[in-house]
Amino acid sequence: MPTDHDPTDSSDPADAAESVDFDVTPYAVSGEVDYEKLLARFGADALTDDQLERFPRPPHPLLRRGVFYAGRDVDRLLDAVEADEPISIVTGIGPSGPMHLGHVLPFYFAKWLQAETGAHVYVPLSDDEKYLSKDLSLADVRGYARENLRDLLAVGFDPDRTRIVVDTADADVIYPLATALAKRVTPATVEAVYGEPENVGMGFYPAVQATHLLLPQFVRGPHATTVPIAVDQDPHVRLCRDVAAKEVLDAEKPGALLSRFLPSLGGPGKMSASDETPSIDLTDDRETVRRKVMRYAYSGGQSSVEAHRELGGDPEVDIAYRYLHAFFEPDDAEVARLAREYRSGDLLTGDLKARAAERIADFLDAHRARRPSDAELDGALEPYRLTVEERERALAAVGLAPGVRALDADG
Amino acid sequence: MPTDHDPTDSSDPADAAESVDFDVTPYAVSGEVDYEKLLARFGADALTDDQLERFPRPPHPLLRRGVFYAGRDVDRLLDAVEADEPISIVTGIGPSGPMHLGHVLPFYFAKWLQAETGAHVYVPLSDDEKYLSKDLSLADVRGYARENLRDLLAVGFDPDRTRIVVDTADADVIYPLATALAKRVTPATVEAVYGEPENVGMGFYPAVQATHLLLPQFVRGPHATTVPIAVDQDPHVRLCRDVAAKEVLDAEKPGALLSRFLPSLGGPGKMSASDETPSIDLTDDRETVRRKVMRYAYSGGQSSVEAHRELGGDPEVDIAYRYLHAFFEPDDAEVARLAREYRSGDLLTGDLKARAAERIADFLDAHRARRPSDAELDGALEPYRLTVEERERALAAVGLAPGVRALDADG
Repeated sequence: MPTDHDPTDSSDPADAAESVDFDVTPYAVSGEVDYEKLLARFGADALTDDQLERFPRPPHPLLRRGVFYAGRDVDRLLDAVEADEPISIVTGIGPSGPMHLGHVLPFYFAKWLQAETGAHVYVPLSDDEKYLSKDLSLADVRGYARENLRDLLAVGFDPDRTRIVVDTADADVIYPLATALAKRVTPATVEAVYGEPENVGMGFYPAVQATHLLLPQFVRGPHATTVPIAVDQDPHVRLCRDVAAKEVLDAEKPGALLSRFLPSLGGPGKMSASDETPSIDLTDDRETVRRKVMRYAYSGGQSSVEAHRELGGDPEVDIAYRYLHAFFEPDDAEVARLAREYRSGDLLTGDLKARAAERIADFLDAHRARRPSDAELDGALEPYRLTVEERERALAAVGLAPGVRALDADG
Repeated sequence: MPTDHDPTDSSDPADAAESVDFDVTPYAVSGEVDYEKLLARFGADALTDDQLERFPRPPHPLLRRGVFYAGRDVDRLLDAVEADEPISIVTGIGPSGPMHLGHVLPFYFAKWLQAETGAHVYVPLSDDEKYLSKDLSLADVRGYARENLRDLLAVGFDPDRTRIVVDTADADVIYPLATALAKRVTPATVEAVYGEPENVGMGFYPAVQATHLLLPQFVRGPHATTVPIAVDQDPHVRLCRDVAAKEVLDAEKPGALLSRFLPSLGGPGKMSASDETPSIDLTDDRETVRRKVMRYAYSGGQSSVEAHRELGGDPEVDIAYRYLHAFFEPDDAEVARLAREYRSGDLLTGDLKARAAERIADFLDAHRARRPSDAELDGALEPYRLTVEERERALAAVGLAPGVRALDADG
């Protein structure tokens, strides 16, 4: 599901305060998020221990360490995994700038799920939405899409089971499917979820987004699909589920895996501090990563080494620890040791930061080594594009048989 | 410009009454239309004698007999014709059923203009809009589109200068261009022109329609374009002109040639009588045409031969006469003679009807002789489709350079 919402750019539950007022929409998060209340508000379900047990062993750190903490129709997904039935994952991006570290982590999670379950992964790039909602030209957005595509290819998805679509470049399929769904989406529904759209393109876009989530089923027929996504993006899924439920098409409602927000470098509750605190960019070399982490990563330690040795630090608000915990330290015993030694004061902030910087830099080095150049992009993307047969199947699913040479524009 | 508004299915000024209350929107005409007041209301201009003089000689009957009676930027069109500059005509159809006689006449007018001026003709089929606005499936609408395409090909446009696009089948171009324009169209503007859209697809559709009208300029660069259209469809043109004016793209506002409504067989003011009075179908053979005209064509004659010989008939309300006058009798002297002899009572209703039926049947015979079969359709359509180069030029006009293999979906 496309979003330009950097999951590291949000407030965080660890930044606890007495306030219980908070507001979470796909476009803004304010106040102190109560993640449990949010589920009640959205009507989603917390992941149960039983469900966690049923994921492939060991579950990805994002799962077993509670970043993904809720979902919709998770049992349906797990049933399909256990029965070796087809499953698909949809996880996209809105190309409005270079991807940062926080943007790319969900794709690595999807890659893990693909490797463990054989899931097909669909990655939509909503360049239309970014053009329509931001002060960017279509050429700007196309440029960002090309950059983002290079990062998506660097993730290393299995090309036989992965399809990447760009709304304007795959409009031959996306627009007819979105039109098929748009008939069941009223302006009032869109306004209730998103507010009054600024232009008619944004008014239509929810139908495009529902198309993204149903695309695997348009291509391969009804099967379990799931959308791993930060919890603030859940309204997109709900709207699509409503459409899928109404639609006479033979499609299941897409499920979801919902994550907490990952804090930005500047720490929890620093959402609007992006001009002060840099993001970690995917292009950052080892030295830059180290410098950013050492200088900017919000610390849960004490203000002096002496105080830290005596009082210990708080890993729960420490960004270096949080990053290691969420994604970059796969070894559970090691994570537990870091937390323990940090709390006791044996582990100093500088050492914890150095460890996190090292792991992040290793990750980025490997990522960049797989990243195609711009010149290589079109060729590298080719095996990830919908085939003619897949396009025809998707269009046939909404009643558009081939003919009037729908797909063959070689005039 | 796509419309399913049969120009023969409307009320008519000849059906004059004292009432001056009337309402004309793209979706409904009510009351007694005052064509001059309508121009003031819409802000369009009556065609002047000077303009009529400047059209290719002799002007088409629909022009010189006043069916096309107004326009927008007509001088710009005529200047371009005289300077031998590029011009384009856009005239489309919404495929929601078989085309009737009234639907096809504007295409023959466009063909005349093409033959006389070398104009390029763009024919958009708005199958998306028909699906979104009617109780039809996409498969239904695709079926009607195929039927309509066969009739459009029967018109005999010059394939080197004519492009036919089907919104869902040419979505690779139509959707990105419509998105480019949609950013400048607010829901409020759409609501002001069309009322609250029933679904978000219809909310977006005005951007698709503006794309149709600007498509010639997206493909060939800025030049004079005109939209021959029944006057009730003028709001579509106005909305597109507003978009073109706002748009940073290098495009001229499309002009218009606006026509009066042609009465249906049942006569003026019989708009809702479609279940009683049949249309003349393009598939009607000579005998059927004759039967329908003889039985149903509203007559301006008297109730008995004796009364007619004595009092004469009124050609202005006589459908057989009106059809001959508008389109089917090219000879001005002959039309004048028919009117004169009808008024005097020398020409009887039956003879006038027989003449009209004959001419219409001749026209339909010739039309059907050129109509490809369904099996021939795809091949026959091929030379009328946008070429890859034209698609690339159109997309480049909104900033979408080729790349990410936008047009080459051979995965």
